[in-house]
Amino acid sequence: MEANNKTNNRGAAPTRVERFVPSLRWLRRYTREDLEGDLTAGIITAVLLVPQGMAFAILAGLPAQIGLYASVLPPIVYALLGTSRTLAVGPVSVAALMVAHALGDLPGSVDPLVAALTLALMAGVVLLLMGLAGMGLVANFLSHPVLSGFIHAAVILIVLNQLPNLTGINVPVEWTITGIMNSITSGLATTHGITLLIGAVSIALLLLAGGPAVALLSRLGLPQRRAMLVSRTAPLLVVMLATLAVTLGSLDFVATVGTIPQGLPMPSLALPETQLAVELLPAAILIGLVGYVESVSIAITLANRRRQHIDANQELIALGAANLAGGVSGGMPVAGGFSRTMVNFAAGARTQFAAIITAVLVAAVALFFTPLLENLPKAALAAIIIVAVSRLVDPRAIVNIWRFDRVDGLVLLATALGVLAIGIEPGLAIGIALSLISFVVRAARPHVAVMGRIRGTEHFRNVKRHKVETWPQLLFLRVDENLTFANAAFLENLVSSKLASRGDIRHVILVLSSVNAIDSTALEVLERLAESSREAEVTLHLSDVKGPVMDHLERSKLIKAIEPGQVFLSAHQAAEALR
Amino acid sequence: MEANNKTNNRGAAPTRVERFVPSLRWLRRYTREDLEGDLTAGIITAVLLVPQGMAFAILAGLPAQIGLYASVLPPIVYALLGTSRTLAVGPVSVAALMVAHALGDLPGSVDPLVAALTLALMAGVVLLLMGLAGMGLVANFLSHPVLSGFIHAAVILIVLNQLPNLTGINVPVEWTITGIMNSITSGLATTHGITLLIGAVSIALLLLAGGPAVALLSRLGLPQRRAMLVSRTAPLLVVMLATLAVTLGSLDFVATVGTIPQGLPMPSLALPETQLAVELLPAAILIGLVGYVESVSIAITLANRRRQHIDANQELIALGAANLAGGVSGGMPVAGGFSRTMVNFAAGARTQFAAIITAVLVAAVALFFTPLLENLPKAALAAIIIVAVSRLVDPRAIVNIWRFDRVDGLVLLATALGVLAIGIEPGLAIGIALSLISFVVRAARPHVAVMGRIRGTEHFRNVKRHKVETWPQLLFLRVDENLTFANAAFLENLVSSKLASRGDIRHVILVLSSVNAIDSTALEVLERLAESSREAEVTLHLSDVKGPVMDHLERSKLIKAIEPGQVFLSAHQAAEALR
Repeated sequence: MEANNKTNNRGAAPTRVERFVPSLRWLRRYTREDLEGDLTAGIITAVLLVPQGMAFAILAGLPAQIGLYASVLPPIVYALLGTSRTLAVGPVSVAALMVAHALGDLPGSVDPLVAALTLALMAGVVLLLMGLAGMGLVANFLSHPVLSGFIHAAVILIVLNQLPNLTGINVPVEWTITGIMNSITSGLATTHGITLLIGAVSIALLLLAGGPAVALLSRLGLPQRRAMLVSRTAPLLVVMLATLAVTLGSLDFVATVGTIPQGLPMPSLALPETQLAVELLPAAILIGLVGYVESVSIAITLANRRRQHIDANQELIALGAANLAGGVSGGMPVAGGFSRTMVNFAAGARTQFAAIITAVLVAAVALFFTPLLENLPKAALAAIIIVAVSRLVDPRAIVNIWRFDRVDGLVLLATALGVLAIGIEPGLAIGIALSLISFVVRAARPHVAVMGRIRGTEHFRNVKRHKVETWPQLLFLRVDENLTFANAAFLENLVSSKLASRGDIRHVILVLSSVNAIDSTALEVLERLAESSREAEVTLHLSDVKGPVMDHLERSKLIKAIEPGQVFLSAHQAAEALR
Repeated sequence: MEANNKTNNRGAAPTRVERFVPSLRWLRRYTREDLEGDLTAGIITAVLLVPQGMAFAILAGLPAQIGLYASVLPPIVYALLGTSRTLAVGPVSVAALMVAHALGDLPGSVDPLVAALTLALMAGVVLLLMGLAGMGLVANFLSHPVLSGFIHAAVILIVLNQLPNLTGINVPVEWTITGIMNSITSGLATTHGITLLIGAVSIALLLLAGGPAVALLSRLGLPQRRAMLVSRTAPLLVVMLATLAVTLGSLDFVATVGTIPQGLPMPSLALPETQLAVELLPAAILIGLVGYVESVSIAITLANRRRQHIDANQELIALGAANLAGGVSGGMPVAGGFSRTMVNFAAGARTQFAAIITAVLVAAVALFFTPLLENLPKAALAAIIIVAVSRLVDPRAIVNIWRFDRVDGLVLLATALGVLAIGIEPGLAIGIALSLISFVVRAARPHVAVMGRIRGTEHFRNVKRHKVETWPQLLFLRVDENLTFANAAFLENLVSSKLASRGDIRHVILVLSSVNAIDSTALEVLERLAESSREAEVTLHLSDVKGPVMDHLERSKLIKAIEPGQVFLSAHQAAEALR
């Protein structure tokens, strides 16, 4: 936050304590109006979170109650430490998929519950460390095309993974597209009629609740926004109807969630085994990073609508602490969920007190109502998962990326195919690597202008765009990019080509007016250039070197290496001295 | 090469054919003067190449003659296709080390000769493809710190690897620092006195030839440059003396090169087995890339001294073709060697005809003189390798990098430690990854200026540096970097923070005068920003959008997404319209 708070209508700049515990800001100014909004939003979000939490735990290959545990302490910790007022933290579909994948790779002797705790703990530690290192704004290895490619591939994997639960097919879990397809085709014959019926009806109800029900409720006189909120309680309705159907119909042969222990686990910190921790570290890093990037982009969008500010570093710390809380309270990795946050915001949440209300309600369910959920069929949860992740599909975004930037389109495609064909972690790694490489390649050909002086002035401009005077023995080059290893070869090549083609050049003046930084590769190239051109009786000079760049260069030998070349204040000064 | 050739004193622009066969340029204008220089240089370089070629083959774990084969056809192909007039192509120490490492990982059933051919063929194909794709200037994944860290680690590995040959210790070959150290300590007791003596005397002779001999010859009246050239024939002298010693002394118990078949293998193209090719591909890519980057940097430095031009793409093609030639003629991967190129240049080479003379002389050795080399002790070759690679050590370069840029210093250190502790390929991969990541991280915090208008003018400047007029409802932001995934989060965060702290802002004008490109991540963020700020009754505008950027943006929905926000020609125009 900037020092300029003269016109701040959100109150004074945050104090030191408020910076570390941002919830103090809204707690101190909490109003009755806030409470009204938070109460409604907290209840509605809880109604959505109970079925989603259980569903995502099952997606992760864990017992349903783990999703409830991860929905209590983590959102409370985030509420106290996070800078977003409305982000709804808890189990999310993509992280659940990544957990399932990481657990699937482990030997059978490892307890999945312990592995899930370990993932949450380590993801938490990674995010916390990044936050303490101030990496909030620089953790940008996940570009939009990588994330989009990854999420679309994840949706496909999640849907395929839940088809067995939805249809009653009994097949081993597989995590590459070919593995899943094989499983499903070989198990098709075992499709279970009643299970499939429950699944299909659940999906139909959820889809109807999305559009048609809202339209109907609106026509019946309910305001549009309220109608939408009512429609978002559909998952709970589905859970109740499906459970009732199984219970009343005595459908013992339908796979259900089964006995869920009543109560909440006592928080406890068991340090993970070293070997397990090492094996899970890459997955934990990716789970943490993907969760962070997604959470912050949701949080910033909503904060902007209300002119609130998201502090990226504090978000790393808050999400890290929330994951740690998930790890010590018997849960699984958590993040800000897209659909739940939107529901929370639309239901009128004004502060994180809404999240605390949600957490208390989920805790109440875990403490008192789990016996009611014993007969909840897995097919209904599979339907909830499938409908929830289908909202992440955005074909227009893919088309837009492809149209706008072919390279980014290819990165998206490579990430998606990599995740589907090879696996989640290597696929993401391929995407990140391509993204980084394309970034360097783009910077490899900076805009460079040969410059001349506008007659009668001291101004130097691009010779291609302006009528300027030039001198045959002088070459003025302006590079419009920082000088780094990405473009050092380009620059060296350019100067060498100019010297080869214009034999009368005696002085090359590099105009560094657009250069904000020089790395050691570029420095090496400049020194080499100065030395080799001196043998061709050409002197290298610099001009318009910015203050910080000059300070930096003074720590090198470049200024000495270019002698008798000089550093001029301006191109004009160089022209006067050298022509 | 540029169109502007008015003042070109190197002759006309190259024709189409000359572009693909650059040797035609010097062949057509070949003079008696050229011949004199090339003849001397060709002979002196051959004297250096024969022992070095054999030594580097042995370093690669191959029979000595492979180094001779790789010194015939590859340099001739490079001579015809390369754009450097003086680059001496053939076996080089670092590539030899990488070959040895790649061969060491293969199962025992694979013939090392076939594997070496396969590496050369594949490195050649990779470079050729990159050249045809025009990647000459963008193949910059190897920054200076990565390369320097790698080469210094390689020197340590090479010296340790050659200690057994030098001392007669008989131990298995190992490729990580701990493995080598173990081998050596466990084998110390087996040190072989006479072998060690030959090795030590060889090293002493080579070192004496470096400095003291030059000084002596100069004092005896020989011109300094000529004295240096004479001193460079020392490796041949060492080879002759050591061979004589073994032959005359009948030292059968000293390990020698052994029988070298007379003649040259007929060129033949055997397509490599798929499985072997897949296993060797990563090594081949790295061998090709490292060789290319090193070769081009030597070539450009020397070309600049004579105002000649190196075409980076053509170099990819020429070095690719040279490696292919090495692969079909029974050789090993090749590159431009640092020390031989320097000798070639200093000896007066004016064109690649010198390289052709060298190649013919090496061919003559392979055809007629190999029986003379049968008793050449490996210890002498080890001495030649060790002295050659010791010239690559440059502690000042390391200190300079460390002083100039701490991050680059850490990248160098990580690469070197990675290569020593884990292995050549993973170590290089770690270095490249760190280099790319540090590049993105550096770009993550662009320079951003809040701008105001200099009173009475149309000029907008940074409010921190100039006395300017501002308007409370307008925020002018200029970003001095391309908008990419590296800094999109930074920009979004900045705008959001300004909106949160200055509640009276109604219009945000992004001044894009320094922005040359926008990627799809930044586009997504801008669209999101426009949408979310609209709900806070803030309108996003753009100004000073460069032509190409505007063309690009028109392929997106951004212009529509920012409505009612507009695109202004200048910040001044925006201020007039909005204030």
